[in-house]
Amino acid sequence: MRAINYDDGQLTLLDQTKLPTETVYKTYESVEEVARAIEEMVVRGAPAIGITAAYGTVIGARKFVSGDFKVYMQKVIKRLWHTRPTAVNLHWALERMEQIITDDVDDSIQLLEQEARLIEAEDTDINLAIGNTLKHLVQDKTAFLIHCNPGRLATSDYGTATAPFYLAHEAGVKFKVYSDETRPRLQGALTAYELSDAGIDVTVITDSTAATLMQQGKITAVFVGCDRVAANGDVVNKIGTLPLAIAAQYYGVPFYVAAPTPTFDLKVANGADIPIEERHASEVTHLAGQSLTSVQSVYNPAFDVTPHELITALATEHGLIEASQEAIEELFRKGER
Amino acid sequence: MRAINYDDGQLTLLDQTKLPTETVYKTYESVEEVARAIEEMVVRGAPAIGITAAYGTVIGARKFVSGDFKVYMQKVIKRLWHTRPTAVNLHWALERMEQIITDDVDDSIQLLEQEARLIEAEDTDINLAIGNTLKHLVQDKTAFLIHCNPGRLATSDYGTATAPFYLAHEAGVKFKVYSDETRPRLQGALTAYELSDAGIDVTVITDSTAATLMQQGKITAVFVGCDRVAANGDVVNKIGTLPLAIAAQYYGVPFYVAAPTPTFDLKVANGADIPIEERHASEVTHLAGQSLTSVQSVYNPAFDVTPHELITALATEHGLIEASQEAIEELFRKGER
Repeated sequence: MRAINYDDGQLTLLDQTKLPTETVYKTYESVEEVARAIEEMVVRGAPAIGITAAYGTVIGARKFVSGDFKVYMQKVIKRLWHTRPTAVNLHWALERMEQIITDDVDDSIQLLEQEARLIEAEDTDINLAIGNTLKHLVQDKTAFLIHCNPGRLATSDYGTATAPFYLAHEAGVKFKVYSDETRPRLQGALTAYELSDAGIDVTVITDSTAATLMQQGKITAVFVGCDRVAANGDVVNKIGTLPLAIAAQYYGVPFYVAAPTPTFDLKVANGADIPIEERHASEVTHLAGQSLTSVQSVYNPAFDVTPHELITALATEHGLIEASQEAIEELFRKGER
Repeated sequence: MRAINYDDGQLTLLDQTKLPTETVYKTYESVEEVARAIEEMVVRGAPAIGITAAYGTVIGARKFVSGDFKVYMQKVIKRLWHTRPTAVNLHWALERMEQIITDDVDDSIQLLEQEARLIEAEDTDINLAIGNTLKHLVQDKTAFLIHCNPGRLATSDYGTATAPFYLAHEAGVKFKVYSDETRPRLQGALTAYELSDAGIDVTVITDSTAATLMQQGKITAVFVGCDRVAANGDVVNKIGTLPLAIAAQYYGVPFYVAAPTPTFDLKVANGADIPIEERHASEVTHLAGQSLTSVQSVYNPAFDVTPHELITALATEHGLIEASQEAIEELFRKGER
């Protein structure tokens, strides 16, 4: 079960809008097709969007016919850049791709393909490192709350916030995961599907039930992913993350954000400066073609901003750090990024 | 649009499981039918359940053929008593009905019918009084958050937490209501439907979006209903009320609970002692006949417990009171209930 598969100019994506009812793979052969797959959430999750856009760039380069290659590639990157506004991994990956484009078309295609494969491979390494950072918390008889899908399906492999679960499960630990269904797009069903598929004990709850589980003392810690981390440690993640963080603080439940370094955006001072995508009203008013409400006035932000003071720690591939300007600055000084 | 209509031994209910797509009224002529209508949420909302059970008692009495009438009526009341465990209005109404049953069948039927009509009429009066208690908060350019359906459809008329909206709207005030969709049963769609039908400006959001609106400073106050108030002021209401109350406290947003006195249960010391109904997994795993997840392990409590310290005030038909043991004791001393 891999979300993204690239081979010789063909990008095959697992259509996540059809999961878990149907397992449909579709092949994309043009930049426009790849861009629409990102917009329509055939592929979703910050790391997966970055990897897909990287391969989209390769597909674009291979389609070049004539004219100024660099100008052409700028258009390719621009189309992919504007697919979704919030996850910074998309822009981070496209900037990496853009930097290696030269006037030599054949050479560029080869380098772009190498770079996309590298971004994908690095993502797996990052996720394993994050898993190792958090897996000491996953012990026998513990229970975790997870929101949205920061899992295999959202990354190259292992997921970000799910990586500790996969590693602990491989080590024979017996624990439990509660997966928020994550309205409106129900990505929690994807998380339940992939964890269950791996043999992990997972229970689905409505998003509103999470606070009750914390009140009952049943949650060891909350693990979430993120779409962008601001310079001060504020985190933008799937809508519904903020109320979890507030409830976790109220009940003294540790709240960890799995944050790969490509998800940090040191150019934005704080969460309020991160653009939040608003999606169609139909995501809320309809489900599987069924109308759920007669009222068409809907406010549907896809993400929310969790202030850094509600976050116990950011779990990066370099270990746990405090969600603070100082700790983030130190991380990036060390990494010389 | 009335949820409950009684006429000469026939109880006609608006089927709320089919709203807002279809407007279907169905007539119920036996106790078993009425009991199932409550269990299946054809009718829902604490006050409406109480009124329906009262009329169910009348229907039962009218069906009496032979034997010991009082023993027969005990069975009728027992069947209705066990339909749903959480809303105390059900038991409160049935206790009122039980007290007036004598061995005189014809006399009892007449008195039971009078009592049921009185319970219904009192509910409208209570809701208008609650509306008058809260309507000073509903001014031009204010905005409110509401959860589940404490509206016309959940009561005889006006609703509890919606009554101030109807009264302010009749007075020409221009305000806005955000209605949580309220997973899993989407009663927020009922609220949006009835407020919109009355010409009130209402916007639907997913439950997870409420905290973001509070963070943005857009919410003047939260209004919710309740299914049972404990002696210490803890409130049991629809699942998702607790995380709203926690977020409201975090952002300093006033949190009001519309609490008719029949919803108080002085016999339970605190919220933890109130039985919380757990409903079928299928409410979470399926919607409109569609499967939403492949995982069948679900935790689906229908209600949650909001501790009294998170509640700004209880809005009763006798005015605002603090959510505390002392204030509740004083209210009931005055009322000599």
